[in-house]
Amino acid sequence: MSKIKVTIWNENVHEREEGPVGDHIRTIYPEGIHNYLKGALAADDLEIRAVSLDMPEQGLPDALINDTDVLVWWGHVAHARVNDALVDKLQARVLNGMGLVVLHSGHYSKIFKRMMGTTCSLHWREVGEKERLWQIVRRHPITEGVPETFTLPHTEMYGESFDIPDDGKLIYISWYEGGNVFRSGVTFQRGNGRIFYFAPGHETFPIYHDANIQKILGNAIRWAAPECYREPWDENIRVPHEKVTSENPMAAIDTSALHKKV
Amino acid sequence: MSKIKVTIWNENVHEREEGPVGDHIRTIYPEGIHNYLKGALAADDLEIRAVSLDMPEQGLPDALINDTDVLVWWGHVAHARVNDALVDKLQARVLNGMGLVVLHSGHYSKIFKRMMGTTCSLHWREVGEKERLWQIVRRHPITEGVPETFTLPHTEMYGESFDIPDDGKLIYISWYEGGNVFRSGVTFQRGNGRIFYFAPGHETFPIYHDANIQKILGNAIRWAAPECYREPWDENIRVPHEKVTSENPMAAIDTSALHKKV
Amino acid sequence: MSKIKVTIWNENVHEREEGPVGDHIRTIYPEGIHNYLKGALAADDLEIRAVSLDMPEQGLPDALINDTDVLVWWGHVAHARVNDALVDKLQARVLNGMGLVVLHSGHYSKIFKRMMGTTCSLHWREVGEKERLWQIVRRHPITEGVPETFTLPHTEMYGESFDIPDDGKLIYISWYEGGNVFRSGVTFQRGNGRIFYFAPGHETFPIYHDANIQKILGNAIRWAAPECYREPWDENIRVPHEKVTSENPMAAIDTSALHKKV
Amino acid sequence: MSKIKVTIWNENVHEREEGPVGDHIRTIYPEGIHNYLKGALAADDLEIRAVSLDMPEQGLPDALINDTDVLVWWGHVAHARVNDALVDKLQARVLNGMGLVVLHSGHYSKIFKRMMGTTCSLHWREVGEKERLWQIVRRHPITEGVPETFTLPHTEMYGESFDIPDDGKLIYISWYEGGNVFRSGVTFQRGNGRIFYFAPGHETFPIYHDANIQKILGNAIRWAAPECYREPWDENIRVPHEKVTSENPMAAIDTSALHKKV
Repeated sequence: MSKIKVTIWNENVHEREEGPVGDHIRTIYPEGIHNYLKGALAADDLEIRAVSLDMPEQGLPDALINDTDVLVWWGHVAHARVNDALVDKLQARVLNGMGLVVLHSGHYSKIFKRMMGTTCSLHWREVGEKERLWQIVRRHPITEGVPETFTLPHTEMYGESFDIPDDGKLIYISWYEGGNVFRSGVTFQRGNGRIFYFAPGHETFPIYHDANIQKILGNAIRWAAPECYREPWDENIRVPHEKVTSENPMAAIDTSALHKKV
Repeated sequence: MSKIKVTIWNENVHEREEGPVGDHIRTIYPEGIHNYLKGALAADDLEIRAVSLDMPEQGLPDALINDTDVLVWWGHVAHARVNDALVDKLQARVLNGMGLVVLHSGHYSKIFKRMMGTTCSLHWREVGEKERLWQIVRRHPITEGVPETFTLPHTEMYGESFDIPDDGKLIYISWYEGGNVFRSGVTFQRGNGRIFYFAPGHETFPIYHDANIQKILGNAIRWAAPECYREPWDENIRVPHEKVTSENPMAAIDTSALHKKV
Repeated sequence: MSKIKVTIWNENVHEREEGPVGDHIRTIYPEGIHNYLKGALAADDLEIRAVSLDMPEQGLPDALINDTDVLVWWGHVAHARVNDALVDKLQARVLNGMGLVVLHSGHYSKIFKRMMGTTCSLHWREVGEKERLWQIVRRHPITEGVPETFTLPHTEMYGESFDIPDDGKLIYISWYEGGNVFRSGVTFQRGNGRIFYFAPGHETFPIYHDANIQKILGNAIRWAAPECYREPWDENIRVPHEKVTSENPMAAIDTSALHKKV
Repeated sequence: MSKIKVTIWNENVHEREEGPVGDHIRTIYPEGIHNYLKGALAADDLEIRAVSLDMPEQGLPDALINDTDVLVWWGHVAHARVNDALVDKLQARVLNGMGLVVLHSGHYSKIFKRMMGTTCSLHWREVGEKERLWQIVRRHPITEGVPETFTLPHTEMYGESFDIPDDGKLIYISWYEGGNVFRSGVTFQRGNGRIFYFAPGHETFPIYHDANIQKILGNAIRWAAPECYREPWDENIRVPHEKVTSENPMAAIDTSALHKKV
């Protein structure tokens, strides 16, 4: 069986900031969140590549996009720097079948907002409070091997209301010590592609070091991987018919000019 | 009670084409589909404006957008000419609460694809075949006063698979003489806004002259009208907390720099 | 405009218990929860009847069921005493169009479980902790006039996972001081009928005295009221066809015997 | 890897009828639909048992139910003869994780109606017309290896509106020669269990001989099989809390009597 080809993209900005915050983050993720996750999620069935915004072609040349089965996305302060043309390509690839796992502040990334069609806005607070996740769905590949509930001792709060479409299937809802709730694990299908948004992952806390979080991310990558690809349709498809006996009142008129794009 | 302010937008290209096809369309819609619908849907509770792509600011200056409760959209061959900046404004307005009724080939419009996040592609055929619509939902404001099933004698076929998100609530499925089916009436909610896609409406057949079609469109406009508007959130909202007793390991570090967009 | 005919059903067991708990509950609801709500929700557009399990025909004779637009249900320890034949009638009436508002421990009532098809089980705890409700949907008739978030100082905790179908539209998620979350306000449509489950309402706390709770219940009753009734189909409907040209290989055989129920 | 344990249940009434109809059906299914499917779906990863209503314990003794991973159900005229106690057990097993594949006129079976909560009524017609199925979802395990569209030359028509809950995920919509449409392949999740309703399968036509139909059924069985079982909760679960600091006004009162079922 061939490996699932995973690409972990990180804007990699916080990890390189000067000053005490950057210093603190580097104690948690010395080589960046992307490289940390590459190591933490390593497994025989996964071929993981870690890339970042500062690399050529923003880390995602066409050849890599077209060789990626599941894209994991971490971004926060540099969303605006991601090229729109790259977002177009990623959207097409997702609709074609590529899985997309969007992490934490990636809720505001161009690619997630593009897939959702909504503002994806939410409430937030950063006081290092406790978060408790609750599994909502009773049986799902993403929750396999994870306890029904578990805590993160310190986290950034992301709270409702979260402006996403109604068809998000709830995998997790989070409780926060400070009084908020959040749909923190939600799946969507768009075209051929599966999408998982997972809220935990603030850069100043070692959240990706947590065993449950790692288990969920590994599960999500395997869940999101496509069995196959199908080219998204660049155009609507003109199809023949069974047998039409109605008399077409337009039959005598050449309508081909009607479909010339102007 | 104040009137619902409706704006019917039409690319108005087919209606002005030279040659026999344009001549034929003008026999059905002498002043364009937008002006025809303005007349056909006239009612005491609606204030209807008809605009088109060839007007200044593509027919939709900011003042009109901000005064519109429900936008009806008809486009086909000129989707690419609609300005992206206008689409941004319309999306924001829909998420803010404006209803959006997308007609026929508007399934491929920039605004509909933006709201959906998918290709919105489909199968099609133009042989003037019969279409039969079936009401799927058993009780809905959009179907009030419309028989459970009715036919259109000649139509363009739009067929499955139709690449839209899973949360489309089915109002109508169409049967076509030539052997296809289509989710021809589907609603969505995105942010505060309600969206209705309705497939019938090919320009070379007098479909908008049909009494059932007019009834459905009038119902849909009233269903989609917002009770109120709320500004969409330009930013996530930072919120206070109940009472957090966890000790924040970041409390001694100034993290404000982290949120500076780069 | 005719009034919405509301029937509030209460098992009315706790309110009549002897001892200190019953005494306490009677200080909150001297005439029972049903009669308290009848008074609290009184409005010009509502005709409210309060009934209880100890009345003839368990409070719901056919004439009353058939005259009810919205049924509000409160039950807890006496679910098993409700007759199955009554549940059959209520289910048929809901599918016919009657709204159903299920309160608190009514999640385990026969009628709610019948409508859902699932166990409707949940986690719970009774320590009088604080509950905070968060509005999830950004625009909905049930939340009109209610703040985005509000608290109940003391409540019974109902927590996830809550075993309900996936098509529950989230109106509220609750946060509990003790670390749990719950989909505490959820709507469903079944047949012609609208259903709203709303978790707050434990009998030992004056939750129905809360102005926000009352506002939500009044909104929910108006939202759930049907515009019209349609008889549910006792049988599948045999329908004629457009025009079938395929040769039926069974045409020579009398198949009427096949449909005789045995 | 252990085999998926499949039980195919058939009321087996039509196949044993006297007269020309029964004779005709026996030419298609000499040993009954259940035994035909047992043979047609035979595969190394499936352990298939074929049972029928006329067997002891209606074909489904407890030991067999508890050893079944996926139950396939075919019934038509004998729904009423299925014991309610058996339906209770099957529902509990599905909520526990057992897959359920409901065929054709099983839409009106007690177990399907129990899982749905709706009437499950539909329109129908039996003139042996052509049916064409269209795949709606673009990527799903149930459609693997099946063409996007295919036909059945002669079928009983099942048409909309079909009274099922909104969360049915559309796998197939059928077109019928006579002018109807139907959501003919729909999945649901209820508790831990997956459900697939699939409309084709009328007893007087050799529909289960069709290679595409067999492929879909095999796929559906594998899709519906649970990875594991979890006991459904007979009772709500009382859970401890994180830390509640609110003072409980009921703390001085013994509330244990409140939860005594009456």
